[in-house]
Amino acid sequence: MLSPGLALHTDKYQINMMYAHWLHGTHNRKAVFEAFFRKLPFGNGYAVFAGLERIVKYVEDLRFEESDLAYLREQEENYDPGFLEELRQFRFSGSLYSVREGSLVFPGEPLVRVESRIFEAQLIETALLNFLNYQTLIATKASRIRQVAKGDALMEFGIRRAQEADAALWGTRAVYLAGFDSTSNMLAGKLFGIPTEGTHAHSWVQSHESEEEAFRRYATALPDQVTLLVDTYDTLGSGVPHAIQIGLAMKRQGKSLRAVRLDSGDIAYLSIKTREMLDQAGLTEVKIVASNDLDEHTILSLKVQGARVDAWGVGTQLITAADQPTLGGVYKLVAREGEDGAYVPTIKISANPEKVTIPGAKDIYRLIDKQTGKAIADYLCYPDERDIQERAAIKLFHPNHPYISKQLDKYEAEPLLVPVFAEGKRVYDLPDLEEIRRYHREQLCLFWPEYLRMHNPEHYRVHLSEQVWKTRASLMQRYLDKT
Amino acid sequence: MLSPGLALHTDKYQINMMYAHWLHGTHNRKAVFEAFFRKLPFGNGYAVFAGLERIVKYVEDLRFEESDLAYLREQEENYDPGFLEELRQFRFSGSLYSVREGSLVFPGEPLVRVESRIFEAQLIETALLNFLNYQTLIATKASRIRQVAKGDALMEFGIRRAQEADAALWGTRAVYLAGFDSTSNMLAGKLFGIPTEGTHAHSWVQSHESEEEAFRRYATALPDQVTLLVDTYDTLGSGVPHAIQIGLAMKRQGKSLRAVRLDSGDIAYLSIKTREMLDQAGLTEVKIVASNDLDEHTILSLKVQGARVDAWGVGTQLITAADQPTLGGVYKLVAREGEDGAYVPTIKISANPEKVTIPGAKDIYRLIDKQTGKAIADYLCYPDERDIQERAAIKLFHPNHPYISKQLDKYEAEPLLVPVFAEGKRVYDLPDLEEIRRYHREQLCLFWPEYLRMHNPEHYRVHLSEQVWKTRASLMQRYLDKT
Repeated sequence: MLSPGLALHTDKYQINMMYAHWLHGTHNRKAVFEAFFRKLPFGNGYAVFAGLERIVKYVEDLRFEESDLAYLREQEENYDPGFLEELRQFRFSGSLYSVREGSLVFPGEPLVRVESRIFEAQLIETALLNFLNYQTLIATKASRIRQVAKGDALMEFGIRRAQEADAALWGTRAVYLAGFDSTSNMLAGKLFGIPTEGTHAHSWVQSHESEEEAFRRYATALPDQVTLLVDTYDTLGSGVPHAIQIGLAMKRQGKSLRAVRLDSGDIAYLSIKTREMLDQAGLTEVKIVASNDLDEHTILSLKVQGARVDAWGVGTQLITAADQPTLGGVYKLVAREGEDGAYVPTIKISANPEKVTIPGAKDIYRLIDKQTGKAIADYLCYPDERDIQERAAIKLFHPNHPYISKQLDKYEAEPLLVPVFAEGKRVYDLPDLEEIRRYHREQLCLFWPEYLRMHNPEHYRVHLSEQVWKTRASLMQRYLDKT
Repeated sequence: MLSPGLALHTDKYQINMMYAHWLHGTHNRKAVFEAFFRKLPFGNGYAVFAGLERIVKYVEDLRFEESDLAYLREQEENYDPGFLEELRQFRFSGSLYSVREGSLVFPGEPLVRVESRIFEAQLIETALLNFLNYQTLIATKASRIRQVAKGDALMEFGIRRAQEADAALWGTRAVYLAGFDSTSNMLAGKLFGIPTEGTHAHSWVQSHESEEEAFRRYATALPDQVTLLVDTYDTLGSGVPHAIQIGLAMKRQGKSLRAVRLDSGDIAYLSIKTREMLDQAGLTEVKIVASNDLDEHTILSLKVQGARVDAWGVGTQLITAADQPTLGGVYKLVAREGEDGAYVPTIKISANPEKVTIPGAKDIYRLIDKQTGKAIADYLCYPDERDIQERAAIKLFHPNHPYISKQLDKYEAEPLLVPVFAEGKRVYDLPDLEEIRRYHREQLCLFWPEYLRMHNPEHYRVHLSEQVWKTRASLMQRYLDKT
């Protein structure tokens, strides 16, 4: 691994814009950027936010190394030495607010809000999106699979199919925080304390004179965690009978075969037959593990077919989010410091109404029904709006269809953005992974099942405050008048 | 970035199998594994091999750190201290053969062949597949886009949508070796010498009082590489007219506006209109760059519609290989050292004929027509087969349909696997990236266009030698007889 620092893990245009700002003396102007996504992945009803730990460490460690500066100098003759010196001094000195990892989040909400010199806010855009987009995507996929698998054990098995090493590592963390039980990924086990699981490969069987010998030797070596892979030659004709032999022998010694693993063929049929064979041999305690290109759809279908599977090993489809391998999160300027030092809200216009940005630095509140304790909707407003802080009556505006507005009188409200950095100093303790898992489970309880179901979930609303809505409408009007 | 060593970038079952081999004293037995894929991605006619540089560095640096051993000790009480000591001494001491990066490769061919102690061959499986699967996938996608874009400039713009940091970095390298011209990825530029390109973001425009001011300031700062993004507010109504203003002003100063960039809306229509407007203003030299979720299909479609685009910025769809985000490469045991020290070919049986492995350590030759200089087919044989080495007549067998066999008398043959490690020592000089790019272009010239086209390419054959075919048939028979 080349293990480089990540200051240059960015797009060239960020460095060019930093340079242009520096040259014109506008680099110290304050700006507010918000990262959000526009559309939920997989047709899901929610996304699961992940990536903050990685973002925090990136921001804390962000420095230009001498080799970075040498590269920039040689790359671009335009760059003034004073600019490179400014980069040498670079530290993140701004404020950053973020949703907590494990939160359920929705389109259009600021997941991360950065308030800093535009010089800094611009540089970190690319890496921040790179981390947030992938980890949120994978946590969301894993949460879907958890919903379908219900109480079954879920194991992450995807390293070899992940898109390079970091994806395997950080993807596994995202998977675990969204409810998986374990992983085969040893590095993720070491670095994040995630429980690890392993069986054996076909090569273990092939590297012995016979399947029987291979099974016996494996059982001797790791007697307390024997899961035997039974499909190297012939699942029901050879693999399961040999596993039963081992299981019975272990039983006689007071030990226990833990599981057999099915990795090919018709899992529904094979698992039912395997269960029968194990039960008939008196090995009712031996579990059945299934793997082989599983995702939420195949697991659901297998369950409907009555498959007798106790634990699922999920790889490729999960770690790459194969049916939609990108979240498409963006990072948009929502306010800038004007000549007079005050923030000016900014907008990006688009022919597509969904793509028009929402101006101004915003907070998010989750509105909660006092009676049921369930979430009603999310609410975007400006940090200085008093109504919500005092839990007074508020008016909710649909971002694109103003006629859908309603009044809300009695509610509880939970702010979703927490301060992570304040003027460059970290003010947030990163929770440990078990705490994030718990928080994610609690978050799920806050929502009616209609929002959580895998197919055609009910649409959870994200509303604007009246002030946000009016600011947006007037800025849009201003640009429409111009053109 | 946590920048860990990669010894634990592996599946738990590898460590468990290593332990079981060690415990039974079989860990020093030799084994031969081959990495290959079964199906071409994207319906393409070929894949482009990439990942070798990463694999070589991984293998060379492969050591267990003390913290890795401490983790294993605490994880698994079964592990004997002698085993951990064996891991502490771990170095790759085997041989490794590989196809060269940039080669066109086909299903069923061994892309990498590892001959070593099974203890070592087992450990490296996961990382080797993780690198090879992703990089080969992305190089293949990039090669498809290059075929469609013909001589147009191609820029990689995908960091923010890549699946974490390594994917952005190594994916960009794969993209460049398969024919892209440049990238926005500064780290890839620094580490691999890939030319970098950058424009500016919408935020640059939004952070100024007006679009005009923003354009003017950008042009002053980087006068020799000004590409202006024209869709922040209104492409044809505001962006292009402002860019023309700047272009004319630059021209008066003897400089030149390089390009405008379209990033939303109907690229076909907008590019044609933009070209007209630029030409009418006398700015015929100003290029048009397009971006926004492009891939080979959208580029082809835009070309058919007469879009006037000179350069394409390709991001999300390429860096994630969105239409098929995994290659599905596998690593299978093909031979093992028997009790007597001789290699025994091994097989993995499957109910699916395409999934039955091809036993024995194999070489690959590309058979070339002496008259035309074009590739006829690839040929898998054992390293000791003389016919092919002497270019004598050979018989070609279809892996699954033996009735499709034919005789070949006159041909040239190019061996595809090169020795990379011999008994732990590297014996291969890694070519530089420009050399790999050239090699890839030469490889393309070796094939008739029918194999290279994007839609419904002709199927290029991979044949077996008679000896390979017979070995496989007899091993299959032996297992069928048993069950």
